[in-house]
Amino acid sequence: MNQAEAVPSSAVVRPKLKRSIIDCDIHHYTGMDVIRPYLAREYRELVETYGNALPGGMHFNGGVGGRMVDSFPPEGGPAGSSLSYMQRHHLDPNHVEYGILTGEGSGMHNTINHDYAAALCSAVNDYTIEHWLSQDSRLKGSVMIPKQDPLLSAKEIDRVGGRSDFAQVLVSNGAIFPYGNRYYYPIYEACVRHNLPFTIHVGNEGSGVNGPPTGAGHVTHYIESRASRPQVMMAHLASFIFEGVFERFPTLKVVLQEAGVFWIAPYLWRLDQDWKALRVQTPWVRKLPSEYFRDHMRVTTQPIEMTPNRAVFDQMMASIFAKDTMMYCSDYPHWDFDSPLKALPKLDDELWDRVYYRNAANIYGLPARKSERAGEPS
Amino acid sequence: MNQAEAVPSSAVVRPKLKRSIIDCDIHHYTGMDVIRPYLAREYRELVETYGNALPGGMHFNGGVGGRMVDSFPPEGGPAGSSLSYMQRHHLDPNHVEYGILTGEGSGMHNTINHDYAAALCSAVNDYTIEHWLSQDSRLKGSVMIPKQDPLLSAKEIDRVGGRSDFAQVLVSNGAIFPYGNRYYYPIYEACVRHNLPFTIHVGNEGSGVNGPPTGAGHVTHYIESRASRPQVMMAHLASFIFEGVFERFPTLKVVLQEAGVFWIAPYLWRLDQDWKALRVQTPWVRKLPSEYFRDHMRVTTQPIEMTPNRAVFDQMMASIFAKDTMMYCSDYPHWDFDSPLKALPKLDDELWDRVYYRNAANIYGLPARKSERAGEPS
Repeated sequence: MNQAEAVPSSAVVRPKLKRSIIDCDIHHYTGMDVIRPYLAREYRELVETYGNALPGGMHFNGGVGGRMVDSFPPEGGPAGSSLSYMQRHHLDPNHVEYGILTGEGSGMHNTINHDYAAALCSAVNDYTIEHWLSQDSRLKGSVMIPKQDPLLSAKEIDRVGGRSDFAQVLVSNGAIFPYGNRYYYPIYEACVRHNLPFTIHVGNEGSGVNGPPTGAGHVTHYIESRASRPQVMMAHLASFIFEGVFERFPTLKVVLQEAGVFWIAPYLWRLDQDWKALRVQTPWVRKLPSEYFRDHMRVTTQPIEMTPNRAVFDQMMASIFAKDTMMYCSDYPHWDFDSPLKALPKLDDELWDRVYYRNAANIYGLPARKSERAGEPS
Repeated sequence: MNQAEAVPSSAVVRPKLKRSIIDCDIHHYTGMDVIRPYLAREYRELVETYGNALPGGMHFNGGVGGRMVDSFPPEGGPAGSSLSYMQRHHLDPNHVEYGILTGEGSGMHNTINHDYAAALCSAVNDYTIEHWLSQDSRLKGSVMIPKQDPLLSAKEIDRVGGRSDFAQVLVSNGAIFPYGNRYYYPIYEACVRHNLPFTIHVGNEGSGVNGPPTGAGHVTHYIESRASRPQVMMAHLASFIFEGVFERFPTLKVVLQEAGVFWIAPYLWRLDQDWKALRVQTPWVRKLPSEYFRDHMRVTTQPIEMTPNRAVFDQMMASIFAKDTMMYCSDYPHWDFDSPLKALPKLDDELWDRVYYRNAANIYGLPARKSERAGEPS
């Protein structure tokens, strides 16, 4: 027991929230205009001569250009481009003790040109270090990798992943193969080497090098594209388990981001059932799929499905082992931002603390909450 | 009120079951060896000269060749090939009053050759009429269509769909486009013309003309392939709703077969939520996605997910409107056959009757249960 536990929780000043929180998904702006100075010279010149040469988004979106109306900095510029406005608008009032920056797609996960993808990732990572991580110690970065090319990805993880201000490795949900495929092993070797979780964030489904976003081909409308996100995440989840990735990399953690959460419950029921009947075909899968999920996977909240009533909510939370696996995130400044005050129904103290702080602190290895450190003022 | 309601239910003889049932998924054998005599002469000659020329299954399976060990007729031949054995083994002891025959894939839903696909469908349909539907009045057929080619599909529906012994139109889950796409309208026009539900049965995901089975590409193991089935079905479900198919074809009913059932609950929660935020982009979608589901879609039971406990089961049943949407099926003679005695936990009488009989009788337009007809012995 440390002295922190002696600090009565009522002594902590909390602007609307019980305690400070960790936000696992904050999109700082990483468009070409800001990362260009960090791009390797040969690509900078190509971009200046030919344009970005990146697959574009194929769907309309929500909000204004996909962003919350009030998230644009008053001094001008894109949503998520101003640290000082993000501090005033989100980090300070929402008592964010740590925020994991996830950037914007920028095409590095779906361009056909792997070397260009790698250069873009390096540029985003360097820009993020200089303009964000070194400016506010609350912010932690995501190592962007060109997942199309696992060897170049491992190289980038080794280049910056040892820094204490990077919290995870991040890739898009849209992929060429499901992420359990052994093609990706160099990435997981590097993640394990640097003790970084591997985070799959929705995006790029059906775009660029990635195949159609559903097992029935392309979809027509944005709402269908959003509906395809859990489908693709399902493919990755099953792939990690049945390819035996967690047996090969026992310390690897995987975060599923922004594809919803409650689809995981019936999906695990089905995988557990099928594993009981078919485990002879995948003998390296040694325990129930739901146990691998609980031990190795985490899921962030936004956009959590609204259940018909509280009883269903509680049972779904239990069914996905939320106490161990769920981590709050806001998706700031995207249009479907979830305020920490409204993201979830009222949780008991223990569960609240795990979802809004402790589960993330544990897998990202973040130092304990300031307000709980011995003798420190909150 | 008719006199049938005066017959006390205790007067009915029931071998283990309360009442007779409808089984919505019985696979009679429709391999090339039995359908060849029904194949158009030009294709019969091509098959004799070059072989079947059909995409094969890419995964191992369960049971023995994918079938229950005890489903092979003692007189020899493949599982599901003998009507008399099926009668003794399943229809009689399980008190099946009606059984919907669904055949075997046979490649008609994934061959690149649309005309050959159409010829195969006609052969299966003609074989089914002669050897099954005309031999046992309990059995109802599925009109197989070459869904790759909606015009040829409509032609086949018009050719045999007017017969009272066909209950539905059947296609594979694996598809080139999600089934809400307007490309398929000629099929729905024909379904509506003949008042036949459109049934999507799992199969052919990732095979032949159909794209990879997940939004992240191909999968490695059979258990992952099974896990891809709900993913693809999700794509179809969203497509039907957001493309506005049910506004254009208000009498159309769609049956989702063998992709599980409880994934539908969190999926509908998410679609309802997103529709509230994004309905401006699809103004022809006039009510909640869950309302379209309830009004127009049905889901068959096998293989239903096992929930952690009864309370969760009941809430999931309510969440998918099982009282209105769920229909029992066995998947006979496949290895993961669900006996009507064990498929589901104990249901109250009303729900039991709807799931095991009435919902199917309603959408397939089947005459009322024999044991409930006035004056008839059970």
